[in-house]
Amino acid sequence: MNPKAYLEEKRRLVNEALERFLPSPRRRPRRLHQAMRYSCFAGGKRLRPILAINSFELTGGEGERILPAACGLELIHTYSLIHDDLPCMDDDDLRRGKPTLHRAFDQGLALLAGDALHALAFELLASSGSLKVVVEVSQAIGSQGIIGGQVADVEAEGVKIPPREVKYIHTHKTAALFRASLRIGAILGGGSEEELGCLSKYGERLGLLFQIVDDILDVEGERERLGKPVGSDQRRGKATYPSVWGMEESKGEAKRLARLAKREVEKMGPRAGFLHWLPEFILTRRG
Amino acid sequence: MNPKAYLEEKRRLVNEALERFLPSPRRRPRRLHQAMRYSCFAGGKRLRPILAINSFELTGGEGERILPAACGLELIHTYSLIHDDLPCMDDDDLRRGKPTLHRAFDQGLALLAGDALHALAFELLASSGSLKVVVEVSQAIGSQGIIGGQVADVEAEGVKIPPREVKYIHTHKTAALFRASLRIGAILGGGSEEELGCLSKYGERLGLLFQIVDDILDVEGERERLGKPVGSDQRRGKATYPSVWGMEESKGEAKRLARLAKREVEKMGPRAGFLHWLPEFILTRRG
Repeated sequence: MNPKAYLEEKRRLVNEALERFLPSPRRRPRRLHQAMRYSCFAGGKRLRPILAINSFELTGGEGERILPAACGLELIHTYSLIHDDLPCMDDDDLRRGKPTLHRAFDQGLALLAGDALHALAFELLASSGSLKVVVEVSQAIGSQGIIGGQVADVEAEGVKIPPREVKYIHTHKTAALFRASLRIGAILGGGSEEELGCLSKYGERLGLLFQIVDDILDVEGERERLGKPVGSDQRRGKATYPSVWGMEESKGEAKRLARLAKREVEKMGPRAGFLHWLPEFILTRRG
Repeated sequence: MNPKAYLEEKRRLVNEALERFLPSPRRRPRRLHQAMRYSCFAGGKRLRPILAINSFELTGGEGERILPAACGLELIHTYSLIHDDLPCMDDDDLRRGKPTLHRAFDQGLALLAGDALHALAFELLASSGSLKVVVEVSQAIGSQGIIGGQVADVEAEGVKIPPREVKYIHTHKTAALFRASLRIGAILGGGSEEELGCLSKYGERLGLLFQIVDDILDVEGERERLGKPVGSDQRRGKATYPSVWGMEESKGEAKRLARLAKREVEKMGPRAGFLHWLPEFILTRRG
């Protein structure tokens, strides 16, 4: 299948599964369930669950057994965006062209909706039947993973930091969950240690690439395609690749990471065709 | 063993285990790890982990295999208090006689420290080796558990609500995690379905009792013993048992719940001596 059609098909599959896994908005507490759904169905790309699904399939997994864990990853991603947008963090008003959750509802409810998605994610991850999957994600999102990166990100605001520090931030804040997504797919698909190793490295590189492109788009992107104002990182004095390494260097690094990621999955042959295509797609994305 | 000495011994055991399970404050990100520890070692009673340990022991569990899951429960409890104290929720300045985490550090770090404890809790719960334990806790703390209760709690502020609504709030906000603590101990201890049933009911009653006593102490308690100002519920227009049912009725309900809880574990005989003693202890607590 053409990779863009694959992406589209899996996105639909994930959206349908999320619809089933999220509590009904008619069930109490209704406003909470409405808030959870508002953020989950705000037009996400579903990249993390799709990575898990693809990794599951290419390591020999069959059927839809991967879906609860894949959706768990998306809920984790959504919860972390909700908390990141709060006034005590990035204080963002827009996300994917819509008001952020605390703007559409209120701060208290946004905090709790994030917490509830966090908890539901672990219920879904556990229903994969694998304790390794639960541990993998809890480590990827904890103080040595996403949250470690977010803390370093906040601490770096308005401060001059060395280039390796922005790599630390991006690796933890973004790449850790990409890596975990690919690993989870391979764990549930029954991949070998070697496959797990390849996919882990691929995930780290893809995640870092994704975040660098995000930084570049915040400078050069178009507001309409991004669904948020351009230049917000700079206004906030955020540590980004362009601000620390310079724009040309950042673009070069993105290309280098795309090359390295592709090389990593070349070892796996044609069955890894989608993963081989993806870095270029991310490199040229506009929103 | 005398139940008070048992409580003290297990509290020490839990504190030592938490010391091992929490990331070192010298490890990066240091401020985050310091914040996590600040809240975890602020003098908690460790009731939830002790309930899990006792339930584990009395259903036949041996050794310290219960400790990771028991500590996971305490981290969940701590994270929920941190988020509950934030300005967008209860906006509390003091907790157990010390500044709340966002006062001692800052709001962003308090938010993230809560999130990191939430994630670490699931890593510990998974390391119990039981997926049922992970599911049990994720359901008890999600939108149909603690968070459902917290949302209803916030929505009830300053509003006249029917008596059954305050029971809904307390059952979800507090009793759900008490119940899960006892169930987890029994699951890991290898308890029978009948034992699981008894301990679940006991947990619901004990949790509700605990929260009603908490409400009563907020009116009649002493600031020094409580470690926070008295009367804060009333100032905030919170839905509490005394405000909705009246003080005498609330005290009667607390006594009734203590009696029902004791009756539930009487079926289990003398090995449930600690659980039989506990309701009276909670009923007469002063802080």
